[in-house]
Amino acid sequence: MERHRALIDARVERWKNDLPALGLYTPMSYLLDLPAKRVRPVLVMMGAELFGGTAESVLDEALGIELFHNFTLMHDDIMDEAPLRRGRPTVHAKWNVNTAILSGDAMLVKAYQLMAKHPDVLALFSRYALEVCEGQQLDMDFEQRSDVHIDEYVEMIRLKTAVLLSCALQVGAACAGASKEQQAHIGAYGEHLGLAFQLRDDLLDAFGDPVKVGKQVGGDLRAGKKTYLLIRGLELSAAQGRTELREELAKAPADRDVPRMLRVLEELGVKAEAETEVHRHDAQAMAELDALDVPQARKQALLALAAALLQRTS
Amino acid sequence: MERHRALIDARVERWKNDLPALGLYTPMSYLLDLPAKRVRPVLVMMGAELFGGTAESVLDEALGIELFHNFTLMHDDIMDEAPLRRGRPTVHAKWNVNTAILSGDAMLVKAYQLMAKHPDVLALFSRYALEVCEGQQLDMDFEQRSDVHIDEYVEMIRLKTAVLLSCALQVGAACAGASKEQQAHIGAYGEHLGLAFQLRDDLLDAFGDPVKVGKQVGGDLRAGKKTYLLIRGLELSAAQGRTELREELAKAPADRDVPRMLRVLEELGVKAEAETEVHRHDAQAMAELDALDVPQARKQALLALAAALLQRTS
Repeated sequence: MERHRALIDARVERWKNDLPALGLYTPMSYLLDLPAKRVRPVLVMMGAELFGGTAESVLDEALGIELFHNFTLMHDDIMDEAPLRRGRPTVHAKWNVNTAILSGDAMLVKAYQLMAKHPDVLALFSRYALEVCEGQQLDMDFEQRSDVHIDEYVEMIRLKTAVLLSCALQVGAACAGASKEQQAHIGAYGEHLGLAFQLRDDLLDAFGDPVKVGKQVGGDLRAGKKTYLLIRGLELSAAQGRTELREELAKAPADRDVPRMLRVLEELGVKAEAETEVHRHDAQAMAELDALDVPQARKQALLALAAALLQRTS
Repeated sequence: MERHRALIDARVERWKNDLPALGLYTPMSYLLDLPAKRVRPVLVMMGAELFGGTAESVLDEALGIELFHNFTLMHDDIMDEAPLRRGRPTVHAKWNVNTAILSGDAMLVKAYQLMAKHPDVLALFSRYALEVCEGQQLDMDFEQRSDVHIDEYVEMIRLKTAVLLSCALQVGAACAGASKEQQAHIGAYGEHLGLAFQLRDDLLDAFGDPVKVGKQVGGDLRAGKKTYLLIRGLELSAAQGRTELREELAKAPADRDVPRMLRVLEELGVKAEAETEVHRHDAQAMAELDALDVPQARKQALLALAAALLQRTS
């Protein structure tokens, strides 16, 4: 993973240096300079290596996926009215909304330029790019609705987060000549990994160790953000006639009793259920990896990556 | 041209009917339903026919260019805070800014899906898509500046308007197997045609016959919009020590004496100069068409199109 990180970081650096000196391109460099784990481009490289390709041979596609990811960040931050990303002003906050719209648009075009070498890769990329847009649409729709079902929420995070991890792995695999069947397995691995990761993120925000998580826990609950925990908690509360969560949500965010909300979620079994879902998706990811027809040694990197992302001790 | 219009209209209709029933896609249909001349897709078809291809064989690429054009309209209308387009609410006015951002993004991806058949076409498309973004960036920058030089203005309209006409023709030509040299000629024809058309549009807004133009003339001047006429008028006024334009611009738009501004522009020779520029680009477009190595009869459609767009009587 460290070697892959170094490769993509160097490629990103080179790409930034080649940008024209126009206002349109400055926000792209700015956003790419924020601290980032580069998980998606690393997955492109790992997807290629899994099928006998080299990380170096898919650097363009890896960069293309990272540019696409940053394009979504730039536009999502406008839509979410987010003032900060990783502790620094978002593009629309630092410049303005128009610049963030336009620079994002151009970043999507730049991503396409890098994905254009293989027709198969291009088709995969467009398909999943649309799904990511559909996920963001669902996310925005859900903010306006009070009747979001837990299955709808899981579908939203699948589209918004998991499919791009899946896409990254499939792009790498396709570049290395993997069959459609093998691409499907590695894609499914990425999707389950993404779902496990996102659900775990929801759990950590509520029940994580503040020291390890690096922030005060319960922020999502205080904000009334519709995560797995709150949606499922409201569903079970309604079925069992419990009113605590609704009472807390009726208050202003600052007045909400977060420890009480956490207690209710534990009592309803929502915490345990979410943990079960994380493990289920994790196990499904491992099963997909197992089903791959490649030497076991080549799977080590992806096993280690899943363990690191999900911070399993095993 | 009528046959081409009918072909693309039918293709657009079919495309709209195939869209998934998701909120993300509704604004695309809405925007495509506004009255439109479909100049760009018609140019794709004419570009193909010029080199022996058929209009029917490039319908996907023609639609792709039209989707790209509509994507730029959707996002530009946000940036310009335009409430109306062709007398109907813009997408961000009818829905909201977030929907217009996201639906526009997805429309760009949809455009790419249609441009992916030929690697050459894809490369052309990405290159000119970036130029269109750069043109929009210059346009926004110019709104904040009082020292825009006339050459900068012409470069802006070249990027924002003319290059997409050029791209459309080149895409059609490339699909029909035209050589790079022939593509360059037809591209240059499109660019000069686009510049002539845009400059003529600036002229008509100020000096056109209100009956023929279909609106009160002088709207750009009243709004203080930096068109060829105003930028060049201010340049020449400064050189000759004339202050009328600055005086009028210092007033509120409603108080501006538009007839006085028109008089000054005529006296400074700006009107005559702009007319000369229209004719120069028109002539250069015709020269590029002349240089094309295809049977004369095949050029008729493009000759007629230029005459119609520029409303020449000859």
